[in-house]
Amino acid sequence: MRAVELKGPGIESLALVERPVPEPGPGEVVLRMRAASLNYRDLTTIRGVRPGVRYPAVPLSDGCGEVVAAGAGVSRVSVGDRVAPSFFPEWISGPPPPEAKDRALGSPLDGCLQEYLRIGEQGVTRAPEHLSDEEVASLPCAALTAWRALVVEGGARPGERVLVQGTGGVSIFALQFAKLLGCEVVLTSSSDEKLERGAELGADHRINYRSDPDWPARVREATGGRGVEHALDVGGAGSLRRCLECTAPGGHVGVIGVLGGAEEPIPIRLLMYNNVRLTGITVGSRSDFEQMCRAIELHRLRPQISHVFAFDDYLQALELMQRGGHFGKICIRFGP
Amino acid sequence: MRAVELKGPGIESLALVERPVPEPGPGEVVLRMRAASLNYRDLTTIRGVRPGVRYPAVPLSDGCGEVVAAGAGVSRVSVGDRVAPSFFPEWISGPPPPEAKDRALGSPLDGCLQEYLRIGEQGVTRAPEHLSDEEVASLPCAALTAWRALVVEGGARPGERVLVQGTGGVSIFALQFAKLLGCEVVLTSSSDEKLERGAELGADHRINYRSDPDWPARVREATGGRGVEHALDVGGAGSLRRCLECTAPGGHVGVIGVLGGAEEPIPIRLLMYNNVRLTGITVGSRSDFEQMCRAIELHRLRPQISHVFAFDDYLQALELMQRGGHFGKICIRFGP
Amino acid sequence: MRAVELKGPGIESLALVERPVPEPGPGEVVLRMRAASLNYRDLTTIRGVRPGVRYPAVPLSDGCGEVVAAGAGVSRVSVGDRVAPSFFPEWISGPPPPEAKDRALGSPLDGCLQEYLRIGEQGVTRAPEHLSDEEVASLPCAALTAWRALVVEGGARPGERVLVQGTGGVSIFALQFAKLLGCEVVLTSSSDEKLERGAELGADHRINYRSDPDWPARVREATGGRGVEHALDVGGAGSLRRCLECTAPGGHVGVIGVLGGAEEPIPIRLLMYNNVRLTGITVGSRSDFEQMCRAIELHRLRPQISHVFAFDDYLQALELMQRGGHFGKICIRFGP
Amino acid sequence: MRAVELKGPGIESLALVERPVPEPGPGEVVLRMRAASLNYRDLTTIRGVRPGVRYPAVPLSDGCGEVVAAGAGVSRVSVGDRVAPSFFPEWISGPPPPEAKDRALGSPLDGCLQEYLRIGEQGVTRAPEHLSDEEVASLPCAALTAWRALVVEGGARPGERVLVQGTGGVSIFALQFAKLLGCEVVLTSSSDEKLERGAELGADHRINYRSDPDWPARVREATGGRGVEHALDVGGAGSLRRCLECTAPGGHVGVIGVLGGAEEPIPIRLLMYNNVRLTGITVGSRSDFEQMCRAIELHRLRPQISHVFAFDDYLQALELMQRGGHFGKICIRFGP
Repeated sequence: MRAVELKGPGIESLALVERPVPEPGPGEVVLRMRAASLNYRDLTTIRGVRPGVRYPAVPLSDGCGEVVAAGAGVSRVSVGDRVAPSFFPEWISGPPPPEAKDRALGSPLDGCLQEYLRIGEQGVTRAPEHLSDEEVASLPCAALTAWRALVVEGGARPGERVLVQGTGGVSIFALQFAKLLGCEVVLTSSSDEKLERGAELGADHRINYRSDPDWPARVREATGGRGVEHALDVGGAGSLRRCLECTAPGGHVGVIGVLGGAEEPIPIRLLMYNNVRLTGITVGSRSDFEQMCRAIELHRLRPQISHVFAFDDYLQALELMQRGGHFGKICIRFGP
Repeated sequence: MRAVELKGPGIESLALVERPVPEPGPGEVVLRMRAASLNYRDLTTIRGVRPGVRYPAVPLSDGCGEVVAAGAGVSRVSVGDRVAPSFFPEWISGPPPPEAKDRALGSPLDGCLQEYLRIGEQGVTRAPEHLSDEEVASLPCAALTAWRALVVEGGARPGERVLVQGTGGVSIFALQFAKLLGCEVVLTSSSDEKLERGAELGADHRINYRSDPDWPARVREATGGRGVEHALDVGGAGSLRRCLECTAPGGHVGVIGVLGGAEEPIPIRLLMYNNVRLTGITVGSRSDFEQMCRAIELHRLRPQISHVFAFDDYLQALELMQRGGHFGKICIRFGP
Repeated sequence: MRAVELKGPGIESLALVERPVPEPGPGEVVLRMRAASLNYRDLTTIRGVRPGVRYPAVPLSDGCGEVVAAGAGVSRVSVGDRVAPSFFPEWISGPPPPEAKDRALGSPLDGCLQEYLRIGEQGVTRAPEHLSDEEVASLPCAALTAWRALVVEGGARPGERVLVQGTGGVSIFALQFAKLLGCEVVLTSSSDEKLERGAELGADHRINYRSDPDWPARVREATGGRGVEHALDVGGAGSLRRCLECTAPGGHVGVIGVLGGAEEPIPIRLLMYNNVRLTGITVGSRSDFEQMCRAIELHRLRPQISHVFAFDDYLQALELMQRGGHFGKICIRFGP
Repeated sequence: MRAVELKGPGIESLALVERPVPEPGPGEVVLRMRAASLNYRDLTTIRGVRPGVRYPAVPLSDGCGEVVAAGAGVSRVSVGDRVAPSFFPEWISGPPPPEAKDRALGSPLDGCLQEYLRIGEQGVTRAPEHLSDEEVASLPCAALTAWRALVVEGGARPGERVLVQGTGGVSIFALQFAKLLGCEVVLTSSSDEKLERGAELGADHRINYRSDPDWPARVREATGGRGVEHALDVGGAGSLRRCLECTAPGGHVGVIGVLGGAEEPIPIRLLMYNNVRLTGITVGSRSDFEQMCRAIELHRLRPQISHVFAFDDYLQALELMQRGGHFGKICIRFGP
């Protein structure tokens, strides 16, 4: 089978190789991959800026595949099922067991940029039927991160306000879930065109942070002076600090990214006085994923797919992500 | 001013009397009542089956009024504001302080069936603007009970299933809030016509418990065998036991009524094995009420008003509630 | 190896048999059992009153063993480690995945009344070092049930009051954990002698429910009229109802047993008006177990072992449990 | 009566003045103050570095007084009761209503450095009987802040590890409460002598952060490499960042102070990857205070009083706090 291997740090260290099709051990399944999707994390893995990558690595945590072989004792899924693998295949429910956090797809475990994936049966979930393969592939990391931040850790309630920063994969899911939750959404972007598309997905307030550098003041205005009860912070220079400037008393900020660097100065006094809760978010459990899929199915929610590339064009997909020209998810399609 | 006094147990002990218009003390306001609404609790108060009623009592916990006078130090509201009084005027936030639970409108405190109501400023909340006076008056007990059961204690999430029993005031609010929350709703009623109206409000599954006595089995079928994650139990013979028969593992049952009597046999083994949570619900705090009103405003939600009676026809209103011929709330309108 | 098989319902259907020593598959370990302990559930399994038992079954959910063989890929434990198997070997963290609840030791999975036990590595936890083998064997079901009821679901805090019913295994652990938590304990028993021993373990108030049938009134007196914030209900005729009669507003009752039968009439009005929370408890997760063991180690807590029997005397152990003559746990010792 | 007024920013703007003894309005009580205690916040108020101080202000949020007059309708307390006023007299329960947060004793409301204090009856709580007046006066801000961080927001459980920074008022209460909770305590200080005294109060591990600048590494060692599940961050240069370096996965950091300045760079990646929760803490509700007092009473816990000054020597008390030479609380005694 064909697989893409990362042989060292740097996008130029990616290479298409031939590997044997894996066989399932007891309790394992083998998936024939149909689609994969990209996350910003994959880029940091490939660039070598994330610690702990072992080479060669097969990149990409997220995908959609069909079960084509099942080892002894497998009972959760059957051959023929269309499933999504979990980002952390051993995190089943509740808070993450430490060892499960050390075992993520797309490094250190081999990921989805290969034609077949071997994985424990506990680490896959049947996909919502109304979604395309690419849509399913967009869920495991991006959608679940947004779900965990807003629903599981944030406990967002109808009528509360949610700040969504930008229009990357996680942010667009956050916007869509916030609307399912009955919340009011404030969306920021540097592009009026993207804000327009956000409006179509239900964003109640849109702020161009490029044309309006004091965007936290705009967020406060849009929320009657109070600020938002929920924010997802994707990182970036000064981003968390400014989130805190427009978070309401008792509000929750899910810290889901470090786009802007590993260290950030934050206004402690504001955080303290406003009794803000700040929670570090890293995807979620399989149980969270199953609940999210039930919500997606009930509401026939469709993930926002920005671009789809053929397997052979994986480098173009990575370059697009690097440039940031997308709105929603960048996907890769296997086969014809 | 005119007031209705309950001079002893029994609907025949109600009498229209004249009382002086109250003056606000420090921290108090006086409301000119514009509308009131009925709850089943009012009926039990009037019949004398609730313990602790002191006579004469002015019945009805729920209403909508205009602030016409404000005592020294009042800052939360101003003369001219349209407000709803809290069911428990001293329960502000969090779990109820025991003494606040002992002080409810409509007994032991004088309630809303009078032209003017004196109340502490902490006990009123500005009403959503898009609602009529009757709609506002329908919120304090019925809507807040449903909100607390589903949102605050239940923590319902999108994609979860909610069982709503019957079509009384609390139940219809529960149906409406469950839809705001992104949940799937199973509604039961003894009337196909009422089920039809429930469908218009978004009930995904409808079950006539009269024509189908084994309705818990129908609930399980409608939920893929799993049962509901959330139920509101309004009481009634065998009602809680049957709720438990169709509650999913880990599910939550909000016990909000005792229509059927004070003692109920429940299937302990089922509750235990399924790790069900059962919570006694008695309305909610002012903070809950404010959050609920924000959700109602954002979604322009309209309470379901069944009938409106003139102040002088209050006995007819009570008789209608007794007969159970309503769908949603029975209201009383003050003035022309 | 020697194993005890239950070949049909009834204590007389138990038989000592010879079985081959099991080999570990990938991800599995084999334990040489050193001790086991009895729970009331084992008795119901053996009597055939629990549904779903498949014959032959090896009884007893709880034990302590040494890892003597480890299959491919095992990393959580090593040969030589002394461990306790989990009651539900696949319940790792958070709420229980439904399929994990269907797979408990001591039926439907073969349990600890055999010289060697094969089990997935995820289903074992290293035992606190200061404990004897019998003490370790007493933890998996009884201690974890008490821990989950008080700590995980109840969230008991220092200064709160805890009602402990009787002096069986779970109850004595509840008493000990309540003291670790900084709570005040009210203990009930039918025996003054057992109450005396409870006092030595820290029970602040003792009530003989035989000599004082109105014991809920005594509990209220002991708690300044308020009632207890936490209760564990072990079942028994009228037990849950009476628990509710002495539970404080906002209190939590962990329903952990059905000693007295499957159906119980409960005072709904009291539950509702007092905003009581009732939660069905079935043991806990491996993560709960690990946290509990850390607490046990830090405080050098010693489980209360009532009696220890040799492996060959397992029938005497079961008969003692049936008679109820114990205080704390009944254990079985393997080997000399 | 005598009162100390702050007439402008700066410790030199304090002056002893004569004021009329206040009369209670409806729902109010008047306390004859017996003792007061100092918090670091009082120093920032007096220096004028806290925003929003209006002059003249009577400083000090914390005290103990006797009810000497009660206005109309007062029922929670009686003349003769010894009580502590709440830091936020209008915060009763649950999360703080925003307006309650704006009304704290010791600015903007007149505080405890006066012989008589007028306050709403909802804002006082009967004091534990076994405590001296000074000990009671030490509770409202410092003890409740520690309680809320560890118990209410942190939900600390037996066996978990708690990092306590320094030996100021809040920190020593945190140490004492952590022991009540059954936790293991790591204490840091710049003084070996203070660490010694901390050991007497139960600190399991002691680290001198002056002699060992890489103290987070020591904390990790003391906790088997895992880090602490709970930390209280009192502020100070680099303090929060270093807390995060030794917080365990899923751990909670209560941000309770800004000693070191308003802005702090924090390691976002660590917070995110470890799923740490960071919560801004500002004292707590009256309901929290009542629960804390029950725990203090049950365990006969004694606050750590560092120094007691006579009312006339209030400047010396403030100077001691400024120098930081205390261990526990600095108090002021009224009367002889």
